[in-house]
Amino acid sequence: MVATIDVLKDSGYHGLTIERVATSAGVGKTTVYRWWPTKARLVAEALSTQLEFHPVAATGDLRTDIRYLVQRAVQALHRSPLAQVLPEMAYDLDHDPEAREEILKLFGPARASNLSVLYAAVGNGSLPYDLDGALILDIISGTVLYRSLLGRDLGPHIIDQLTDLVVDFRLPRAHPRHDSS
Amino acid sequence: MVATIDVLKDSGYHGLTIERVATSAGVGKTTVYRWWPTKARLVAEALSTQLEFHPVAATGDLRTDIRYLVQRAVQALHRSPLAQVLPEMAYDLDHDPEAREEILKLFGPARASNLSVLYAAVGNGSLPYDLDGALILDIISGTVLYRSLLGRDLGPHIIDQLTDLVVDFRLPRAHPRHDSS
Repeated sequence: MVATIDVLKDSGYHGLTIERVATSAGVGKTTVYRWWPTKARLVAEALSTQLEFHPVAATGDLRTDIRYLVQRAVQALHRSPLAQVLPEMAYDLDHDPEAREEILKLFGPARASNLSVLYAAVGNGSLPYDLDGALILDIISGTVLYRSLLGRDLGPHIIDQLTDLVVDFRLPRAHPRHDSS
Repeated sequence: MVATIDVLKDSGYHGLTIERVATSAGVGKTTVYRWWPTKARLVAEALSTQLEFHPVAATGDLRTDIRYLVQRAVQALHRSPLAQVLPEMAYDLDHDPEAREEILKLFGPARASNLSVLYAAVGNGSLPYDLDGALILDIISGTVLYRSLLGRDLGPHIIDQLTDLVVDFRLPRAHPRHDSS
């Protein structure tokens, strides 16, 4: 797994071959194939060793909690190994359902924790009772990943804008609010 | 360019090499390199020949116009050649600013047209005067691309949900509205 991460850092998903991983780990190619039948599954498992999962607890203050979710999405999906590798894997994931399953499992704990924060706010009436929490999370993550992919701005203003979208149902504005905290 | 698209269809960005494109086009590798110094720039230009650009005109009915923007994002970014190749190119785009420039140019006309629709609505008072239209477009495109990447649902309900988000400042709900048109 360390060998896989080393090769990924060096040349991206794109330049990773089972052969290079085997050489770097000092084992034979067939040994690698025995455990990970496809490159996508090898990489999915290697990435899982890189993700530290810190469960979030809702503070009860909606703005604090949502801002924290947005900040976590930026940390996870901008200039991170996951953010760099995940888009590159897209084609292989489309052709390798087991690898996609592995990747979804990677996101599982953080996603469940993020949903629990949203639904705590639903539970105390701060957010609508019939909220589609999964889509809220995809809107946040998707916007961050897309901006990262195109090299567009991901500064502090966008964290305010995405927070305000969820907390105040406020469409993003071009300029920061004066009362923004 | 036809040769490049053929190779892309066959094996994705990942499996495309300048050599395969040269062979498929019946020319030498150096000929290809003379015009396109990197693979990313070759692919960016090839993709540009695949995108048909249809300018949108605002109808003046906000819901109709926004729904159309969302539908166009789904068409452009879900199961399209662009959607398949763009994420795969992420690593190369990070290391090839000229290729990223080419890709941003690809999006340019459609993006300008989409912005004009949003700002027509701003101009007639249907949307806030200080709207960050660029971020609205990135929220829509990012959500669609992210869902597509992870193989998550992109059915008609999400078109309603993203439309309602912009038109009614309404956070996405789990179930369709009864009055949804």
